[in-house]
Amino acid sequence: MELQQIGLQHPAASLVRDIQNNRTGIPRRTFVAEGLFENNIVLETGVPVETLLWCPDAAYSDEAKKRAAQLADRARRAYQISEKTLARLAERPNPDGLLSVARLPDWDPATFEFGDDALVLVTDALEIPGNLGTLLRTMDACGADCLVMTNRRTRMTHPKVLRSSQGMSIKVPSLDFDDVDDAIDWLKRNRFRVYIADTDDSVNYRELDYRGRTALVVGSERFGVSRPWYDAGFQRVGIPMLGSADSLNVSVSASVLLYEARAHKNGW
Amino acid sequence: MELQQIGLQHPAASLVRDIQNNRTGIPRRTFVAEGLFENNIVLETGVPVETLLWCPDAAYSDEAKKRAAQLADRARRAYQISEKTLARLAERPNPDGLLSVARLPDWDPATFEFGDDALVLVTDALEIPGNLGTLLRTMDACGADCLVMTNRRTRMTHPKVLRSSQGMSIKVPSLDFDDVDDAIDWLKRNRFRVYIADTDDSVNYRELDYRGRTALVVGSERFGVSRPWYDAGFQRVGIPMLGSADSLNVSVSASVLLYEARAHKNGW
Repeated sequence: MELQQIGLQHPAASLVRDIQNNRTGIPRRTFVAEGLFENNIVLETGVPVETLLWCPDAAYSDEAKKRAAQLADRARRAYQISEKTLARLAERPNPDGLLSVARLPDWDPATFEFGDDALVLVTDALEIPGNLGTLLRTMDACGADCLVMTNRRTRMTHPKVLRSSQGMSIKVPSLDFDDVDDAIDWLKRNRFRVYIADTDDSVNYRELDYRGRTALVVGSERFGVSRPWYDAGFQRVGIPMLGSADSLNVSVSASVLLYEARAHKNGW
Repeated sequence: MELQQIGLQHPAASLVRDIQNNRTGIPRRTFVAEGLFENNIVLETGVPVETLLWCPDAAYSDEAKKRAAQLADRARRAYQISEKTLARLAERPNPDGLLSVARLPDWDPATFEFGDDALVLVTDALEIPGNLGTLLRTMDACGADCLVMTNRRTRMTHPKVLRSSQGMSIKVPSLDFDDVDDAIDWLKRNRFRVYIADTDDSVNYRELDYRGRTALVVGSERFGVSRPWYDAGFQRVGIPMLGSADSLNVSVSASVLLYEARAHKNGW
């Protein structure tokens, strides 16, 4: 494979740095996939690939070479980079010579389809990218249908979301609502039972009815779930807190609830 | 309260910096508590306080002043510091003028006492301080009895453990074994049912017997649970993985298992 060699100053490399540093003004839904694992997900899901940056000198495996060729075929642009440039662009050590710039799919609430037993997680004003990523990893594992984001505070394309989700941010469908009331209307129209994670005045999470379409709402790390969700009159669900801490980490509480719902739905 | 004013170069301030930067050679089990929340736990639990560093100019609340006086009474040494020095020593913004150097309690496996329905978490070679802290927060919340650490890779006094545990690293008892076999003998002698978290050849976590004393073993983020635990012939427990990711974040999987055990024990 013969590719034009570029350096750090080339616009394609600058874009990678801007994305990695979470700068503003990057093209919509654009993220950087590093290494074999993430690029395999890029290939597998068929998401659009804008640019491949390939460093043959830093490739350890035959598989990396094969994937580089496949990515080059799919990419709008493909360049070769030096080991030094790769080291400056990659976030993690040893990305096996592979960096690609790709685009997350767009999912549309108007056309999104659910089964009768769908499981949805709503994150309202979640702030920490690592928590969002950890949740996407759990959502994949428990077979949740999609993520709904309201009062969004972190980008789905943030490098830490991709890393902590182990690439699942590329796979798990996510819908973004500018207005909480639109998300509530949408859930109601789609006949979801909606539960707000909050221990105050709540039903024990083991005793809840998880039949039919279920949506679980978790809030921001500092302030919890925002007012409009409560105003809609949804039931609260609580995980008992038996010690002196007054809350769990949000990715822990959401995961416990998601797996509880899954266990009920699947009859475990 | 009249205290001697010290600066950044004073040994008491240097020690704080060494602990915050996770340097080696700091005194055993010594940690830095910042702000009202953590220092309230220090006061409440009665752990030994070595040093108080108090910055009255940066105190926002009357409670902070009251706690500073109580900490000064309890501390072997107490000093006053400037806002500038506080800013250099504190990890988080606005610690309400309060920094203390305190010591975690020592718990001894030989004398540790359990009820008949005890719940223990074993972390084998866990690497990431944030994961350990998140787990301690869950352990407090679900009323687990103690943490057992084998192949320890991270210090209980690491600032990130304290922060991500929301101070629960001061409260949740933890026992540290140099040798995995000693931990296994100790659990057997204390009549624990031991389950290894591993989806391969496992029993579904919902169907397990959690009666009596229960110990759950989770492993390192990269390599899982080490050989000796398997060689001891313990049952494996699995959380079904329904997607394409092959594992959950370790603090998520351990939390799902801990709450499952608690729900069975408490008849939820």
